[in-house]
Amino acid sequence: MNSSTRATLGVRQAQKLKTRQALLDAALKLLEEQSLSSLGLREVTRVVGVAPAAFYRHFRDMAELGVALVEESLGSLHVMIRAVLAEQQEAEEVIDRSVEAVAEHVRRHPAHVRFVARERHGGVRAVREAIAAELARFGDEVADALAAQEVSRGWSAEDVRMLAGLYVDHLVMTASAFLEASADEQRVIADTARRQLRLISLGRRHWRAA
Amino acid sequence: MNSSTRATLGVRQAQKLKTRQALLDAALKLLEEQSLSSLGLREVTRVVGVAPAAFYRHFRDMAELGVALVEESLGSLHVMIRAVLAEQQEAEEVIDRSVEAVAEHVRRHPAHVRFVARERHGGVRAVREAIAAELARFGDEVADALAAQEVSRGWSAEDVRMLAGLYVDHLVMTASAFLEASADEQRVIADTARRQLRLISLGRRHWRAA
Repeated sequence: MNSSTRATLGVRQAQKLKTRQALLDAALKLLEEQSLSSLGLREVTRVVGVAPAAFYRHFRDMAELGVALVEESLGSLHVMIRAVLAEQQEAEEVIDRSVEAVAEHVRRHPAHVRFVARERHGGVRAVREAIAAELARFGDEVADALAAQEVSRGWSAEDVRMLAGLYVDHLVMTASAFLEASADEQRVIADTARRQLRLISLGRRHWRAA
Repeated sequence: MNSSTRATLGVRQAQKLKTRQALLDAALKLLEEQSLSSLGLREVTRVVGVAPAAFYRHFRDMAELGVALVEESLGSLHVMIRAVLAEQQEAEEVIDRSVEAVAEHVRRHPAHVRFVARERHGGVRAVREAIAAELARFGDEVADALAAQEVSRGWSAEDVRMLAGLYVDHLVMTASAFLEASADEQRVIADTARRQLRLISLGRRHWRAA
Protein backbone atom coordinates (compact mmCIF):
# COMPACT_ATOMS: atom_id res chain seq x y z
CA MET A 1 0.00 0.00 0.00
CA ASN A 2 1.57 3.29 -1.02
CA SER A 3 1.04 6.51 0.82
CA SER A 4 -1.56 7.86 -1.61
CA THR A 5 -3.73 4.70 -1.15
CA ARG A 6 -3.38 5.11 2.59
CA ALA A 7 -4.44 8.72 2.36
CA THR A 8 -7.48 7.73 0.27
CA LEU A 9 -8.46 5.10 2.82
CA GLY A 10 -8.04 7.65 5.56
CA VAL A 11 -10.35 10.06 3.78
CA ARG A 12 -12.87 7.28 3.09
CA GLN A 13 -12.78 6.15 6.68
CA ALA A 14 -13.30 9.69 7.92
CA GLN A 15 -16.20 10.15 5.49
CA LYS A 16 -17.74 6.87 6.65
CA LEU A 17 -17.53 7.89 10.30
CA LYS A 18 -19.01 11.26 9.44
CA THR A 19 -22.01 9.64 7.73
CA ARG A 20 -22.44 7.23 10.65
CA GLN A 21 -22.52 10.14 13.07
CA ALA A 22 -24.96 12.02 10.83
CA LEU A 23 -27.30 8.99 10.91
CA LEU A 24 -27.07 8.85 14.71
CA ASP A 25 -27.73 12.59 15.02
CA ALA A 26 -30.67 12.46 12.62
CA ALA A 27 -32.21 9.49 14.43
CA LEU A 28 -31.82 11.15 17.82
CA LYS A 29 -33.52 14.27 16.51
CA LEU A 30 -36.40 12.30 14.98
CA LEU A 31 -36.79 10.35 18.25
CA GLU A 32 -37.75 13.51 20.09
CA GLU A 33 -41.22 13.08 18.60
CA GLN A 34 -41.55 9.30 18.43
CA SER A 35 -40.19 6.03 19.72
CA LEU A 36 -37.54 3.82 18.22
CA SER A 37 -40.01 1.03 17.41
CA SER A 38 -41.83 3.37 15.03
CA LEU A 39 -38.81 5.07 13.46
CA GLY A 40 -38.34 4.18 9.79
CA LEU A 41 -34.94 3.74 8.20
CA ARG A 42 -35.97 5.91 5.24
CA GLU A 43 -36.91 8.78 7.54
CA VAL A 44 -33.37 8.76 8.87
CA THR A 45 -31.55 8.46 5.55
CA ARG A 46 -33.77 11.16 4.04
CA VAL A 47 -32.67 13.66 6.70
CA VAL A 48 -29.01 12.79 6.13
CA GLY A 49 -29.39 12.88 2.35
CA VAL A 50 -28.10 9.40 1.57
CA ALA A 51 -29.79 6.47 -0.17
CA PRO A 52 -31.74 4.11 2.11
CA ALA A 53 -29.37 1.26 1.23
CA ALA A 54 -26.44 3.30 2.58
CA PHE A 55 -27.86 2.75 6.08
CA TYR A 56 -26.64 -0.86 6.06
CA ARG A 57 -23.02 0.16 5.58
CA HIS A 58 -23.23 1.50 9.14
CA PHE A 59 -25.89 -0.45 11.02
CA ARG A 60 -27.47 -3.88 10.55
CA ASP A 61 -30.85 -2.48 11.53
CA MET A 62 -32.54 0.24 13.57
CA ALA A 63 -31.97 -1.74 16.78
CA GLU A 64 -28.21 -1.63 16.19
CA LEU A 65 -28.39 2.12 15.66
CA GLY A 66 -30.38 2.30 18.91
CA VAL A 67 -27.68 0.42 20.79
CA ALA A 68 -25.08 2.85 19.43
CA LEU A 69 -27.25 5.71 20.73
CA VAL A 70 -27.34 4.03 24.15
CA GLU A 71 -23.53 4.02 24.25
CA GLU A 72 -23.41 7.65 23.16
CA SER A 73 -26.08 8.65 25.70
CA LEU A 74 -24.73 6.87 28.74
CA GLY A 75 -21.08 7.42 27.91
CA SER A 76 -21.25 11.13 28.68
CA LEU A 77 -23.29 10.48 31.83
CA HIS A 78 -20.58 8.09 32.99
CA VAL A 79 -17.92 10.75 32.59
CA MET A 80 -19.95 13.25 34.56
CA ILE A 81 -20.71 10.93 37.48
CA ARG A 82 -17.16 9.62 37.71
CA ALA A 83 -15.97 13.19 38.17
CA VAL A 84 -18.46 13.75 41.02
CA LEU A 85 -17.59 10.45 42.70
CA ALA A 86 -13.87 11.16 42.54
CA GLU A 87 -14.27 14.24 44.72
CA GLN A 88 -13.39 13.93 48.38
CA GLN A 89 -15.79 16.33 50.00
CA GLU A 90 -18.33 16.29 52.77
CA ALA A 91 -21.60 14.54 51.90
CA GLU A 92 -23.59 17.78 51.75
CA GLU A 93 -21.35 19.27 49.06
CA VAL A 94 -21.26 16.05 47.06
CA ILE A 95 -25.06 16.06 47.06
CA ASP A 96 -25.25 19.65 45.83
CA ARG A 97 -22.63 19.00 43.16
CA SER A 98 -24.34 15.77 41.99
CA VAL A 99 -27.73 17.39 41.57
CA GLU A 100 -26.14 20.34 39.77
CA ALA A 101 -24.20 17.94 37.53
CA VAL A 102 -27.40 16.07 36.61
CA ALA A 103 -29.22 19.32 35.84
CA GLU A 104 -26.32 20.49 33.69
CA HIS A 105 -26.19 17.15 31.91
CA VAL A 106 -29.89 17.36 31.05
CA ARG A 107 -29.45 20.94 29.82
CA ARG A 108 -26.61 19.87 27.54
CA HIS A 109 -27.97 16.55 26.33
CA PRO A 110 -31.78 16.68 26.53
CA ALA A 111 -32.30 14.42 23.51
CA HIS A 112 -29.97 11.75 24.89
CA VAL A 113 -31.67 11.82 28.29
CA ARG A 114 -35.11 11.60 26.67
CA PHE A 115 -33.96 8.71 24.51
CA VAL A 116 -32.78 6.68 27.52
CA ALA A 117 -35.88 7.49 29.60
CA ARG A 118 -38.18 6.54 26.72
CA GLU A 119 -36.41 3.43 25.45
CA ARG A 120 -35.48 1.99 28.86
CA HIS A 121 -38.83 0.20 28.77
CA GLY A 122 -39.43 0.74 25.06
CA GLY A 123 -40.44 -1.63 22.29
CA VAL A 124 -36.97 -2.69 21.10
CA ARG A 125 -35.53 -5.50 23.21
CA ALA A 126 -31.87 -5.07 22.16
CA VAL A 127 -32.00 -1.42 23.19
CA ARG A 128 -33.76 -2.17 26.51
CA GLU A 129 -31.07 -4.74 27.25
CA ALA A 130 -28.25 -2.36 26.30
CA ILE A 131 -29.65 0.32 28.62
CA ALA A 132 -30.08 -2.18 31.47
CA ALA A 133 -26.51 -3.44 30.98
CA GLU A 134 -25.07 0.09 30.93
CA LEU A 135 -26.98 1.10 34.05
CA ALA A 136 -25.86 -2.09 35.81
CA ARG A 137 -22.23 -1.36 34.91
CA PHE A 138 -22.77 2.17 36.10
CA GLY A 139 -24.17 0.83 39.41
CA ASP A 140 -21.09 -1.38 39.82
CA GLU A 141 -18.85 1.66 39.37
CA VAL A 142 -20.79 3.68 41.92
CA ALA A 143 -20.60 0.70 44.30
CA ASP A 144 -16.81 0.60 43.93
CA ALA A 145 -16.59 4.27 44.80
CA LEU A 146 -18.95 3.90 47.77
CA ALA A 147 -17.13 0.81 49.07
CA ALA A 148 -13.91 2.82 49.28
CA GLN A 149 -15.51 5.36 51.63
CA GLU A 150 -15.06 5.20 55.41
CA VAL A 151 -18.81 5.13 56.08
CA SER A 152 -19.11 1.80 54.22
CA ARG A 153 -16.85 -0.03 56.65
CA GLY A 154 -18.45 -3.29 57.75
CA TRP A 155 -21.01 -3.25 54.92
CA SER A 156 -21.54 -6.39 52.85
CA ALA A 157 -20.93 -6.12 49.11
CA GLU A 158 -24.69 -6.69 48.56
CA ASP A 159 -25.60 -3.77 50.78
CA VAL A 160 -23.14 -1.46 49.02
CA ARG A 161 -24.53 -2.55 45.65
CA MET A 162 -28.08 -2.01 46.92
CA LEU A 163 -27.21 1.55 47.91
CA ALA A 164 -25.48 2.18 44.57
CA GLY A 165 -28.64 0.99 42.78
CA LEU A 166 -30.73 3.38 44.83
CA TYR A 167 -28.43 6.27 43.83
CA VAL A 168 -28.47 5.30 40.13
CA ASP A 169 -32.26 4.94 40.08
CA HIS A 170 -32.59 8.27 41.83
CA LEU A 171 -30.30 9.89 39.30
CA VAL A 172 -32.26 8.48 36.35
CA MET A 173 -35.56 9.59 37.93
CA THR A 174 -34.21 13.08 38.61
CA ALA A 175 -32.80 13.46 35.11
CA SER A 176 -36.12 12.35 33.59
CA ALA A 177 -38.02 14.77 35.83
CA PHE A 178 -35.80 17.68 34.73
CA LEU A 179 -36.57 16.94 31.07
CA GLU A 180 -40.02 18.40 30.82
CA ALA A 181 -39.82 20.91 33.62
CA SER A 182 -40.00 24.69 33.37
CA ALA A 183 -37.27 26.75 35.07
CA ASP A 184 -39.40 27.09 38.23
CA GLU A 185 -40.22 23.41 38.29
CA GLN A 186 -36.54 22.60 37.84
CA ARG A 187 -35.73 24.47 41.03
CA VAL A 188 -38.34 22.44 42.91
CA ILE A 189 -37.04 19.18 41.40
CA ALA A 190 -33.46 20.06 42.33
CA ASP A 191 -34.48 21.01 45.86
CA THR A 192 -36.49 17.78 46.29
CA ALA A 193 -33.65 15.69 44.87
CA ARG A 194 -31.19 17.23 47.35
CA ARG A 195 -33.47 16.49 50.30
CA GLN A 196 -34.00 12.94 49.10
CA LEU A 197 -30.26 12.36 48.75
CA ARG A 198 -29.75 13.83 52.22
CA LEU A 199 -32.33 11.44 53.64
CA ILE A 200 -30.70 8.49 51.86
CA SER A 201 -27.33 9.60 53.16
CA LEU A 202 -28.75 9.70 56.72
CA GLY A 203 -30.09 6.19 56.27
CA ARG A 204 -26.67 5.16 55.09
CA ARG A 205 -24.98 6.54 58.19
CA HIS A 206 -27.34 4.64 60.46
CA TRP A 207 -27.37 1.40 58.51
CA ARG A 208 -26.34 -1.72 60.35
CA ALA A 209 -25.71 -4.75 58.19
CA ALA A 210 -28.36 -7.39 58.92
CA MET B 1 -89.89 7.09 26.91
CA ASN B 2 -91.59 3.75 27.43
CA SER B 3 -89.98 0.82 29.18
CA SER B 4 -89.07 -0.99 26.00
CA THR B 5 -87.17 2.08 24.69
CA ARG B 6 -85.36 2.28 28.02
CA ALA B 7 -84.44 -1.38 27.81
CA THR B 8 -83.11 -0.86 24.27
CA LEU B 9 -81.02 2.09 25.42
CA GLY B 10 -79.70 -0.02 28.31
CA VAL B 11 -78.66 -2.77 25.94
CA ARG B 12 -77.10 -0.26 23.54
CA GLN B 13 -75.22 1.42 26.36
CA ALA B 14 -73.94 -1.92 27.60
CA GLN B 15 -72.88 -2.85 24.07
CA LYS B 16 -71.11 0.47 23.68
CA LEU B 17 -69.19 0.01 26.92
CA LYS B 18 -68.29 -3.52 25.88
CA THR B 19 -66.84 -2.30 22.56
CA ARG B 20 -64.97 0.50 24.35
CA GLN B 21 -63.41 -2.02 26.71
CA ALA B 22 -62.57 -4.32 23.79
CA LEU B 23 -60.74 -1.41 22.11
CA LEU B 24 -58.79 -0.70 25.31
CA ASP B 25 -57.90 -4.37 25.75
CA ALA B 26 -56.82 -4.73 22.12
CA ALA B 27 -54.66 -1.59 22.28
CA LEU B 28 -53.02 -2.71 25.53
CA LYS B 29 -52.19 -6.07 23.97
CA LEU B 30 -50.76 -4.47 20.82
CA LEU B 31 -48.72 -2.08 22.97
CA GLU B 32 -46.73 -4.98 24.40
CA GLU B 33 -44.71 -4.91 21.19
CA GLN B 34 -44.71 -1.22 20.29
CA SER B 35 -45.27 2.27 21.63
CA LEU B 36 -48.41 4.33 21.57
CA SER B 37 -46.96 6.85 19.10
CA SER B 38 -46.67 4.10 16.49
CA LEU B 39 -49.96 2.33 17.16
CA GLY B 40 -52.45 2.66 14.29
CA LEU B 41 -56.17 3.03 14.84
CA ARG B 42 -56.86 0.40 12.18
CA GLU B 43 -54.67 -2.14 13.93
CA VAL B 44 -56.85 -1.76 17.01
CA THR B 45 -60.23 -1.88 15.28
CA ARG B 46 -59.12 -4.87 13.20
CA VAL B 47 -58.41 -6.90 16.36
CA VAL B 48 -61.81 -5.95 17.82
CA GLY B 49 -63.59 -6.63 14.53
CA VAL B 50 -65.26 -3.25 14.09
CA ALA B 51 -64.97 -0.69 11.29
CA PRO B 52 -62.18 1.91 11.71
CA ALA B 53 -64.80 4.69 11.91
CA ALA B 54 -66.35 3.01 14.94
CA PHE B 55 -63.26 3.99 16.93
CA TYR B 56 -64.46 7.60 17.04
CA ARG B 57 -67.64 6.67 18.84
CA HIS B 58 -65.43 5.91 21.83
CA PHE B 59 -62.28 8.00 21.58
CA ARG B 60 -61.39 11.23 19.80
CA ASP B 61 -57.97 9.86 18.92
CA MET B 62 -55.32 7.39 20.04
CA ALA B 63 -54.07 9.86 22.68
CA GLU B 64 -57.51 9.83 24.34
CA LEU B 65 -57.49 6.04 24.35
CA GLY B 66 -54.02 6.25 25.91
CA VAL B 67 -55.28 8.52 28.68
CA ALA B 68 -58.08 6.02 29.38
CA LEU B 69 -55.44 3.29 29.66
CA VAL B 70 -53.52 5.46 32.15
CA GLU B 71 -56.61 5.66 34.35
CA GLU B 72 -57.16 1.93 34.08
CA SER B 73 -53.47 1.19 34.80
CA LEU B 74 -52.95 3.46 37.77
CA GLY B 75 -56.42 2.94 39.22
CA SER B 76 -55.66 -0.61 40.28
CA LEU B 77 -52.25 0.41 41.64
CA HIS B 78 -53.96 3.07 43.74
CA VAL B 79 -56.26 0.49 45.31
CA MET B 80 -53.33 -1.77 46.12
CA ILE B 81 -51.19 0.93 47.73
CA ARG B 82 -54.04 2.42 49.71
CA ALA B 83 -54.60 -0.99 51.29
CA VAL B 84 -50.93 -1.22 52.29
CA LEU B 85 -50.87 2.34 53.66
CA ALA B 86 -53.99 1.76 55.74
CA GLU B 87 -52.29 -0.96 57.74
CA GLN B 88 -50.98 -0.07 61.17
CA GLN B 89 -47.96 -2.29 61.48
CA GLU B 90 -44.32 -1.99 62.30
CA ALA B 91 -42.19 -0.52 59.50
CA GLU B 92 -40.48 -3.83 58.75
CA GLU B 93 -43.76 -5.59 58.05
CA VAL B 94 -45.12 -2.72 55.99
CA ILE B 95 -41.98 -2.90 53.85
CA ASP B 96 -42.35 -6.64 53.28
CA ARG B 97 -46.03 -6.28 52.50
CA SER B 98 -45.45 -3.34 50.10
CA VAL B 99 -42.81 -5.17 48.07
CA GLU B 100 -44.98 -8.28 47.94
CA ALA B 101 -47.96 -6.16 46.85
CA VAL B 102 -45.92 -4.58 44.04
CA ALA B 103 -44.69 -8.00 42.87
CA GLU B 104 -48.24 -9.35 42.92
CA HIS B 105 -49.51 -6.30 41.05
CA VAL B 106 -46.92 -6.81 38.29
CA ARG B 107 -47.81 -10.51 38.07
CA ARG B 108 -51.48 -9.67 37.65
CA HIS B 109 -51.20 -6.62 35.41
CA PRO B 110 -47.92 -6.89 33.46
CA ALA B 111 -49.30 -5.13 30.38
CA HIS B 112 -50.56 -2.17 32.41
CA VAL B 113 -47.25 -1.81 34.24
CA ARG B 114 -45.33 -2.00 30.96
CA PHE B 115 -47.63 0.59 29.41
CA VAL B 116 -47.01 3.09 32.22
CA ALA B 117 -43.24 2.46 32.28
CA ARG B 118 -43.02 2.87 28.51
CA GLU B 119 -45.32 5.85 28.02
CA ARG B 120 -44.24 7.79 31.11
CA HIS B 121 -41.61 9.39 28.88
CA GLY B 122 -43.16 8.29 25.60
CA GLY B 123 -43.98 10.17 22.43
CA VAL B 124 -47.56 11.21 23.26
CA ARG B 125 -47.73 14.35 25.38
CA ALA B 126 -51.31 13.95 26.63
CA VAL B 127 -50.45 10.50 27.94
CA ARG B 128 -47.19 11.65 29.56
CA GLU B 129 -49.10 14.42 31.28
CA ALA B 130 -51.85 12.05 32.44
CA ILE B 131 -49.28 9.69 33.95
CA ALA B 132 -47.44 12.56 35.65
CA ALA B 133 -50.73 13.89 37.07
CA GLU B 134 -51.79 10.46 38.36
CA LEU B 135 -48.41 9.84 39.98
CA ALA B 136 -48.50 13.30 41.57
CA ARG B 137 -51.95 12.61 42.98
CA PHE B 138 -50.67 9.27 44.18
CA GLY B 139 -47.72 11.04 45.87
CA ASP B 140 -50.14 13.41 47.60
CA GLU B 141 -52.10 10.46 48.96
CA VAL B 142 -48.96 8.75 50.24
CA ALA B 143 -47.93 12.06 51.83
CA ASP B 144 -51.27 12.28 53.65
CA ALA B 145 -50.80 8.78 55.02
CA LEU B 146 -47.20 9.49 56.07
CA ALA B 147 -48.12 12.80 57.70
CA ALA B 148 -50.55 11.00 59.97
CA GLN B 149 -47.80 8.78 61.36
CA GLU B 150 -46.05 9.48 64.67
CA VAL B 151 -42.58 9.50 63.09
CA SER B 152 -43.52 12.51 60.91
CA ARG B 153 -44.15 14.77 63.88
CA GLY B 154 -42.33 18.08 63.38
CA TRP B 155 -41.81 17.50 59.65
CA SER B 156 -42.67 20.28 57.21
CA ALA B 157 -45.26 19.49 54.54
CA GLU B 158 -42.49 19.81 51.89
CA ASP B 159 -40.36 17.20 53.63
CA VAL B 160 -43.27 14.78 53.94
CA ARG B 161 -44.09 15.27 50.23
CA MET B 162 -40.41 14.78 49.36
CA LEU B 163 -40.40 11.45 51.18
CA ALA B 164 -43.68 10.41 49.53
CA GLY B 165 -42.12 11.18 46.14
CA LEU B 166 -39.13 9.01 46.98
CA TYR B 167 -41.47 6.14 47.86
CA VAL B 168 -43.56 6.54 44.70
CA ASP B 169 -40.48 6.70 42.47
CA HIS B 170 -39.07 3.66 44.22
CA LEU B 171 -42.31 1.80 43.69
CA VAL B 172 -42.40 2.66 39.97
CA MET B 173 -38.74 1.64 39.57
CA THR B 174 -39.33 -1.65 41.39
CA ALA B 175 -42.44 -2.47 39.40
CA SER B 176 -40.59 -1.75 36.13
CA ALA B 177 -37.66 -3.91 37.23
CA PHE B 178 -39.96 -6.85 38.02
CA LEU B 179 -41.42 -6.68 34.51
CA GLU B 180 -38.67 -8.33 32.57
CA ALA B 181 -37.12 -10.37 35.35
CA SER B 182 -36.93 -14.16 35.60
CA ALA B 183 -38.14 -15.82 38.82
CA ASP B 184 -34.60 -15.79 40.24
CA GLU B 185 -34.06 -12.16 39.29
CA GLN B 186 -37.39 -11.27 40.87
CA ARG B 187 -36.18 -12.62 44.20
CA VAL B 188 -33.06 -10.45 43.96
CA ILE B 189 -35.12 -7.39 42.97
CA ALA B 190 -37.52 -7.95 45.90
CA ASP B 191 -34.64 -8.41 48.33
CA THR B 192 -32.89 -5.26 47.07
CA ALA B 193 -36.13 -3.27 47.21
CA ARG B 194 -36.72 -4.31 50.82
CA ARG B 195 -33.20 -3.25 51.82
CA GLN B 196 -33.61 0.07 50.04
CA LEU B 197 -36.92 0.75 51.76
CA ARG B 198 -35.32 -0.17 55.09
CA LEU B 199 -32.51 2.30 54.44
CA ILE B 200 -34.98 5.03 53.47
CA SER B 201 -36.99 4.27 56.60
CA LEU B 202 -33.79 4.63 58.70
CA GLY B 203 -33.08 7.97 57.06
CA ARG B 204 -36.64 8.97 57.86
CA ARG B 205 -36.23 8.13 61.55
CA HIS B 206 -33.08 10.26 61.77
CA TRP B 207 -34.32 13.16 59.69
CA ARG B 208 -34.27 16.54 61.32
CA ALA B 209 -36.16 19.24 59.49
CA ALA B 210 -33.71 21.85 58.19
